[in-house]
Amino acid sequence: MNRGLFITFEGGEGSGKSSVIKKLIAELEGKFPLLLTREPGGTKISEEIRNIILDKENTDMDYKTEALLYCASRRQHLVEKVIPALEKNISVISDRYLDSSLVYQGYARGIGIDDVLSINMFAIENCIPDITFLFCIKPEVGLNRIASSSREVNRLDLEKLDFHKKVHDGYMELAERFSDRIYKVDAEKPFEEVYEQVQKKMLEKLKEHYE
Amino acid sequence: MNRGLFITFEGGEGSGKSSVIKKLIAELEGKFPLLLTREPGGTKISEEIRNIILDKENTDMDYKTEALLYCASRRQHLVEKVIPALEKNISVISDRYLDSSLVYQGYARGIGIDDVLSINMFAIENCIPDITFLFCIKPEVGLNRIASSSREVNRLDLEKLDFHKKVHDGYMELAERFSDRIYKVDAEKPFEEVYEQVQKKMLEKLKEHYE
Repeated sequence: MNRGLFITFEGGEGSGKSSVIKKLIAELEGKFPLLLTREPGGTKISEEIRNIILDKENTDMDYKTEALLYCASRRQHLVEKVIPALEKNISVISDRYLDSSLVYQGYARGIGIDDVLSINMFAIENCIPDITFLFCIKPEVGLNRIASSSREVNRLDLEKLDFHKKVHDGYMELAERFSDRIYKVDAEKPFEEVYEQVQKKMLEKLKEHYE
Repeated sequence: MNRGLFITFEGGEGSGKSSVIKKLIAELEGKFPLLLTREPGGTKISEEIRNIILDKENTDMDYKTEALLYCASRRQHLVEKVIPALEKNISVISDRYLDSSLVYQGYARGIGIDDVLSINMFAIENCIPDITFLFCIKPEVGLNRIASSSREVNRLDLEKLDFHKKVHDGYMELAERFSDRIYKVDAEKPFEEVYEQVQKKMLEKLKEHYE
């Protein structure tokens, strides 16, 4: 039996990927079997793990502990939610996944992309995305967007600009390294243009798979 | 500056290692700078992680999630408690460490020793024990000891005998593989004999390091 497509969205803060996903889902739901998710994805164990990471009192958390916890939460979400859907030939769209850890923990925090990749491969085994939409935007532009929007400012938004620049550079490195699955989108363009580019590629992939 | 010795104790259930450690510490405290610990070691973040693993409601926990959580808890305990002591030339004695994960998750749960070793090396880097006392006891003998003692029966005691046999076999495999640091103790012998063997080796190591 066919396995659904595993589609992930990645990008720095304020790249607009969540708005694009929202509109895509509204358009494609009912036409293709789709599941939209984002880690920790509402599974009890993954949520509990994520709560430890995000607890503002846990200021002593080591970066490697954090990377391992993201990995554990990812594993559980994958096993409980993503894989069962893929096995029913439902395509899963995830807002952030593997590459976020490679970039945020591996590159920007300085642990190293290869080391973070290695613990993630333990966690995800063969669950590599079929396609990853990478929303590319200069950090200054992304952060300005957030500042002028009504979205609540989260912990990551508050990191220094230097950190967001590293995130951007890390994503660019991944785009070269995994060019077979990472599809770059110029997210500085107007929303409608970005949306159309993503929608076109997504439809192409889904039609190829289901028709 | 010198770094303290990192000494770990390992063994299946009912091997008597905890009683030996207790007596050793009572005898050696004050003579050498020592810190006795066991994971999660009382650090807030490690305790929170351990609570998720041990929560009886988390029956859906995947074995790999469990292995990653043990790793995260180990990392945090190491960074907050073990390494700062070692750097002050205090010798750290830990009741269980790396090998427990290799054997319980890697071997007995079937994930594979090498895979579990790989995520643990990410977590512990160069913090390999200087010496590991492995208490060897046939599982039937160990479990009988627990049944006839007053110690409270824990979750692991209740695993099927087959599981404890795998734990035993896994430890034997590690003893061969890491024969440079694993020191085997025949834990089926009477307590006083076991104690003397461990005490002798421990004193030898500590004197060599501190005198």
